[in-house]
Amino acid sequence: MKELLVKHLIEQALIEDMPFGDVTTDYLIDKDDISKGYFIAKEPGVIAGIHYLLQVFFTIDNTISFFHHLEDGHQANEGDCILEIEGKTKSILKGERLALNIIQRMSGIATLTHQFVEKVKHTDVKIVDTRKTTPNFRIFEKEAVRLGGGYNHRYNLSDAVLIKDNHIEASGGIKQAVNLIRQYIPHTTKIEVEVENLDMLKEALDAKADIIMLDNMSLNMMKEAVKMTKKQAILEASGNMTLDRVVEVANCGVDIISVGALTHSYRSLDISLRFKI
Amino acid sequence: MKELLVKHLIEQALIEDMPFGDVTTDYLIDKDDISKGYFIAKEPGVIAGIHYLLQVFFTIDNTISFFHHLEDGHQANEGDCILEIEGKTKSILKGERLALNIIQRMSGIATLTHQFVEKVKHTDVKIVDTRKTTPNFRIFEKEAVRLGGGYNHRYNLSDAVLIKDNHIEASGGIKQAVNLIRQYIPHTTKIEVEVENLDMLKEALDAKADIIMLDNMSLNMMKEAVKMTKKQAILEASGNMTLDRVVEVANCGVDIISVGALTHSYRSLDISLRFKI
Amino acid sequence: MKELLVKHLIEQALIEDMPFGDVTTDYLIDKDDISKGYFIAKEPGVIAGIHYLLQVFFTIDNTISFFHHLEDGHQANEGDCILEIEGKTKSILKGERLALNIIQRMSGIATLTHQFVEKVKHTDVKIVDTRKTTPNFRIFEKEAVRLGGGYNHRYNLSDAVLIKDNHIEASGGIKQAVNLIRQYIPHTTKIEVEVENLDMLKEALDAKADIIMLDNMSLNMMKEAVKMTKKQAILEASGNMTLDRVVEVANCGVDIISVGALTHSYRSLDISLRFKI
Amino acid sequence: MKELLVKHLIEQALIEDMPFGDVTTDYLIDKDDISKGYFIAKEPGVIAGIHYLLQVFFTIDNTISFFHHLEDGHQANEGDCILEIEGKTKSILKGERLALNIIQRMSGIATLTHQFVEKVKHTDVKIVDTRKTTPNFRIFEKEAVRLGGGYNHRYNLSDAVLIKDNHIEASGGIKQAVNLIRQYIPHTTKIEVEVENLDMLKEALDAKADIIMLDNMSLNMMKEAVKMTKKQAILEASGNMTLDRVVEVANCGVDIISVGALTHSYRSLDISLRFKI
Amino acid sequence: MKELLVKHLIEQALIEDMPFGDVTTDYLIDKDDISKGYFIAKEPGVIAGIHYLLQVFFTIDNTISFFHHLEDGHQANEGDCILEIEGKTKSILKGERLALNIIQRMSGIATLTHQFVEKVKHTDVKIVDTRKTTPNFRIFEKEAVRLGGGYNHRYNLSDAVLIKDNHIEASGGIKQAVNLIRQYIPHTTKIEVEVENLDMLKEALDAKADIIMLDNMSLNMMKEAVKMTKKQAILEASGNMTLDRVVEVANCGVDIISVGALTHSYRSLDISLRFKI
Amino acid sequence: MKELLVKHLIEQALIEDMPFGDVTTDYLIDKDDISKGYFIAKEPGVIAGIHYLLQVFFTIDNTISFFHHLEDGHQANEGDCILEIEGKTKSILKGERLALNIIQRMSGIATLTHQFVEKVKHTDVKIVDTRKTTPNFRIFEKEAVRLGGGYNHRYNLSDAVLIKDNHIEASGGIKQAVNLIRQYIPHTTKIEVEVENLDMLKEALDAKADIIMLDNMSLNMMKEAVKMTKKQAILEASGNMTLDRVVEVANCGVDIISVGALTHSYRSLDISLRFKI
Repeated sequence: MKELLVKHLIEQALIEDMPFGDVTTDYLIDKDDISKGYFIAKEPGVIAGIHYLLQVFFTIDNTISFFHHLEDGHQANEGDCILEIEGKTKSILKGERLALNIIQRMSGIATLTHQFVEKVKHTDVKIVDTRKTTPNFRIFEKEAVRLGGGYNHRYNLSDAVLIKDNHIEASGGIKQAVNLIRQYIPHTTKIEVEVENLDMLKEALDAKADIIMLDNMSLNMMKEAVKMTKKQAILEASGNMTLDRVVEVANCGVDIISVGALTHSYRSLDISLRFKI
Repeated sequence: MKELLVKHLIEQALIEDMPFGDVTTDYLIDKDDISKGYFIAKEPGVIAGIHYLLQVFFTIDNTISFFHHLEDGHQANEGDCILEIEGKTKSILKGERLALNIIQRMSGIATLTHQFVEKVKHTDVKIVDTRKTTPNFRIFEKEAVRLGGGYNHRYNLSDAVLIKDNHIEASGGIKQAVNLIRQYIPHTTKIEVEVENLDMLKEALDAKADIIMLDNMSLNMMKEAVKMTKKQAILEASGNMTLDRVVEVANCGVDIISVGALTHSYRSLDISLRFKI
Repeated sequence: MKELLVKHLIEQALIEDMPFGDVTTDYLIDKDDISKGYFIAKEPGVIAGIHYLLQVFFTIDNTISFFHHLEDGHQANEGDCILEIEGKTKSILKGERLALNIIQRMSGIATLTHQFVEKVKHTDVKIVDTRKTTPNFRIFEKEAVRLGGGYNHRYNLSDAVLIKDNHIEASGGIKQAVNLIRQYIPHTTKIEVEVENLDMLKEALDAKADIIMLDNMSLNMMKEAVKMTKKQAILEASGNMTLDRVVEVANCGVDIISVGALTHSYRSLDISLRFKI
Repeated sequence: MKELLVKHLIEQALIEDMPFGDVTTDYLIDKDDISKGYFIAKEPGVIAGIHYLLQVFFTIDNTISFFHHLEDGHQANEGDCILEIEGKTKSILKGERLALNIIQRMSGIATLTHQFVEKVKHTDVKIVDTRKTTPNFRIFEKEAVRLGGGYNHRYNLSDAVLIKDNHIEASGGIKQAVNLIRQYIPHTTKIEVEVENLDMLKEALDAKADIIMLDNMSLNMMKEAVKMTKKQAILEASGNMTLDRVVEVANCGVDIISVGALTHSYRSLDISLRFKI
Repeated sequence: MKELLVKHLIEQALIEDMPFGDVTTDYLIDKDDISKGYFIAKEPGVIAGIHYLLQVFFTIDNTISFFHHLEDGHQANEGDCILEIEGKTKSILKGERLALNIIQRMSGIATLTHQFVEKVKHTDVKIVDTRKTTPNFRIFEKEAVRLGGGYNHRYNLSDAVLIKDNHIEASGGIKQAVNLIRQYIPHTTKIEVEVENLDMLKEALDAKADIIMLDNMSLNMMKEAVKMTKKQAILEASGNMTLDRVVEVANCGVDIISVGALTHSYRSLDISLRFKI
Repeated sequence: MKELLVKHLIEQALIEDMPFGDVTTDYLIDKDDISKGYFIAKEPGVIAGIHYLLQVFFTIDNTISFFHHLEDGHQANEGDCILEIEGKTKSILKGERLALNIIQRMSGIATLTHQFVEKVKHTDVKIVDTRKTTPNFRIFEKEAVRLGGGYNHRYNLSDAVLIKDNHIEASGGIKQAVNLIRQYIPHTTKIEVEVENLDMLKEALDAKADIIMLDNMSLNMMKEAVKMTKKQAILEASGNMTLDRVVEVANCGVDIISVGALTHSYRSLDISLRFKI
């Protein structure tokens, strides 16, 4: 269950940040002292990860209570209160850093994703992520992409077939590769082929690939690819996608644009926990 | 042992990316096929994480061999080959993504740290990181800071005392807080106090705090703080540190500058694995 | 990695069978005593799981050596020697039971699968398994199906969409369900719909489902379904499939037949380890 | 604690079947939708594993409620409702497969065991299982044997001594083996010796073995063995026991009959979850 | 979190003592039978570990209730009731041994520590423990030292620097070692140096070590060391400390005395669980 | 496998003592520096745990080499060298503390056990341990008892039946308890009954208990018990056994004497690692 995986990752992260307790708080804060805190967006952005923030605190202390002002996936303005927290001061101080580390990163990703999505909203294009995620943090990062309005690509290497140049070369051609892999994989698994030019595209179409990735193609070539494909496969544009370039790519008529930067080069959104307001 | 922790995290990340194998490679690449690959820096930066990259591949296949061109902590120019890898194509393809996810992130952090370090190299100031790290990736991120020429702050909440406003308020003052905590902690543990003005600084000095964090102080106040302290405590400047502002802060005469951005908002360095050169 | 999962499961099973050692062998067998053993098929069948058998012994003692007579997926006759094992008597005796428990079960599944596959070999139909596997033994059971000539259905609930009656009812119809789920899932994930009659089939075809499961349909209805579908979707027949009925179902022209019995009601193949031959 | 082991195995199995959630149910079923379901025996048999079925659902959602119609170890007729379940549709659908995989297998074993037990109920013979269980599922399978009216043999190799031919040969005889092992094992551990003929039986009796296993003996030899033993040791008959043969063996006067087939070749009992009745 | 570590260790210990249940209690004690028990000190001592004792029982059965007579760190006289426990007889019997194993050991350590602390209470000296703890039981043993009135030394090798003779020799002298390590460690980490004579002490003082360990020095040399140091570093006396010798050492004026015997050679305090009083 | 459990416990203990490395050694000792060390017995005793000491170092560094002077279970005199170790200085320093923590404790137990064994060597009495062990260290402590010449009692609550007063009271008598439990347990499991007087002994003998524990009986009562029993059951004397009292108890003619102090109140044997000799 995803819930068991997330539970494990949050516990592991609490151990990382606090293996033998918080030596400051454990000795200076009275165990019955109660505080109220406010999670404040210090810059505008799309908020993501509130439920994991809650889970961090509940793992430490299940008597903490919350009052929500904003929901996951919603836009916050500078200064907005995202949620109020009330409970033992001890528990709030112990969970603060991990809770912020999660929500700041997820909100950073959701905000960046939202910017890409906004750029192409005049089209049907879907913005999707990649496997360029932080090791052992993928489940949070991929959820942040969805909360920002994007979609997920395959979760991992076991999920779907993606035939790249090495595989094509080893198999003696796209057709051979697709036919070969069909002999092994479940009928429930899709096949994607990465192509660099229109000849390869044609081969992939002939082989009845479900999805075709147009890798680092020029705009003109992508337009041609869309025409050739005639909706017989899903077309995914890929390669160093930026906020500037994404509009022109979307205008070519592809179905999907995958953006590595969503998860490999985001900035944390500035969110802080204030005890006074 | 750190080695056991890293082993666990790398195995966990391999399971994240490949729970039941690589459905493409497992069926299309001959198990005896051999390839040679080159890890290339596609932009200049400080390289970090080569030994973990090796560990990823060795976890998959201990027959893989490497030839080093660059060492951890060294500067790469655009186009430089960082290292060559040779071995079973299958194993190289399976480890490629995780290996890149680690080295790109660590090199991104090392490169950013190096920029901060260069800015203050005319002083004795040390650039240090914070606990604003990615959950379950801290051990890699903190090592990247060191490889970029920076230093680490405390690893976690169990490591050292850091008395903040909540703790001071709860204890009735800085002096009371420091005295109280001395009654509990090991004699091997340092005490740091966060102060916002010179009155608090004086109190912290009187209480014989080992380290005093100057939180978001103006340059003038920091200069005054340095004078008042007379090397009786380590002074650490903190708060929204940027490449622009860090020089002026360093010139104030503080000992340490802590920079959250080193780990919360770095860009991955663009590094790729090429099979042809 | 699948290898890490299998390693974990084999170690867990060795702990299950031998938490504090083998009290008999540890005290009665000299630690340097060497034996030679023969794994013998005591009835005909398709052998599966030899590499896991080896892994059991290597986990106990990496000095054991083997000589293969048969390969995974090959047919054994009664009395055939599958492989010879030579090494410390102690280690062979300790691993014997777990090794046999794995290979007997996997060979039982492969043999049963092979019988189904043989029945339909005059057609293009693929025999596939289900999720009706033994808890924590699925990875072995699904591999045994492949070694017997069958194919795997989705590995688990995260792998592919399978819309059943509860989902259809909750969504207000097949079309609504398919459209709704398309808004969430990756473009790399296939959608299968379970239908009970031809009206539902038509709806699923209109919704462009990738796969349609014909649940417990009569032979005549299945034939009609094949005609209606015109290869616009993969057709999977399902429901209490027996060796008797599978031929007629295959003759209806469906693409896939899923058989729960492959993993929920197999007999272990009788294989034993003999120390004399 | 057994409870901790079972908790671990059930969580591991839920991760096996649903690593990142149920992509169908998560998106199509409203989180507040409530359903009622009925677990129905579709063929007669002895029901086993109800409490584990409950634990599967409670692990997913502790708000689910149940109404019991039958208890573990009781006989169900075709069409009988075993228990009713009511709660969130989402949670019921997610746990359905694992719950059925457990209860079907355990009930299959209990039913088969019960058939053996019935065959010998005119005697004092106990039907016991063996270590021929599915890796990592032994705890469930051995409990199913007990629920079917059978008894357990030793749980694993650490539990009790069982001296077989290899051990006898290595020690220079039964007497030597028994005496040697008595020098090492706790006084709380029983010693069983496997014998193939009456000479060996005599040796084992002289050595004061607690239990003697008559391995694949003829009926006549077993009768003779019973006479010779005069209740000085527990006699266990073993070897390819079938429902046909078990009566004659029991009539020989042995105390225990061990049956590998109870756990290595059972059929799952057909039980289904229906949402309408 | 320390709580997660303790939870894991208690569960692991319950599995150690009861992997498949308590075969006696499971079958002989009615599941609804209720008992009341009394934890009695059978000899005088300082009680430590009551909260872990509770945690053992709560892990088994969260319906058990307690009535406290004594608190952790308090002195018990022979015959004193420490706490009353009431709940299912089954659960009390299952947890009894582990609960006693923890509280007897922790109370043994606290009692011994208290004897050392009493001996030096006319001075400001702190009695501290060492890393000479039982593998995987350190967290309990170090807490017991604190409950007995002692203090903890560094928790482990990652926590603080302790430069010993091998390190000094390898670095070319105390000064070189201290300077070298300052280039690597966080500014939050203290440096301790172990010295054997006054020349080494002088070197360590010059290098500005935070703590200096006087290893196996004579009383006279320690007195001289105190004079030389003038409170410029914390002085820790170490080496085969006994209850007899500790007073004289404390009288020398050192700050800290570390005592390996606190954790490597304590006697369990005799505490028993009685069901009648 | 015991080997897997020990591997886990040693790794867990290395993480306890060195979660993020040894901050002193990592920075001050050259990675290629080689040392030779000598494990020296600083007081006479029975050495136990050498193979675990080796395993600690091999876990850190598999290039370390050893030269054995003494074997497990052998007597060391004061000043004897137990074994030599040679390898990387770094690795030796990192493993030193855990290696000593294990061998000192195991040798302390073996030495104490040996003293008890010597006291009764004129009889056939076996000295056995109890479940009064350190949580998560039992496997090492029970092996140390064997190396000191003692025997193990049951390993845990799942291993053997031990019927105490609570069980007897709940069942309505010894006979009822023994008969009841015989209906549930495997025929491979022994039954022990704890008795306080001769009436109870008679009841236990009538019920054909395998072992009878004479709990805190007077010497005279024990002699009487031996006479009554006539070797029809194993007699185990138990209760606050000391080196003084054990001889008289042994002389009563009992078979087994169990001694809690072997594992609950041992002193570590003084063993040190010297780099010069």
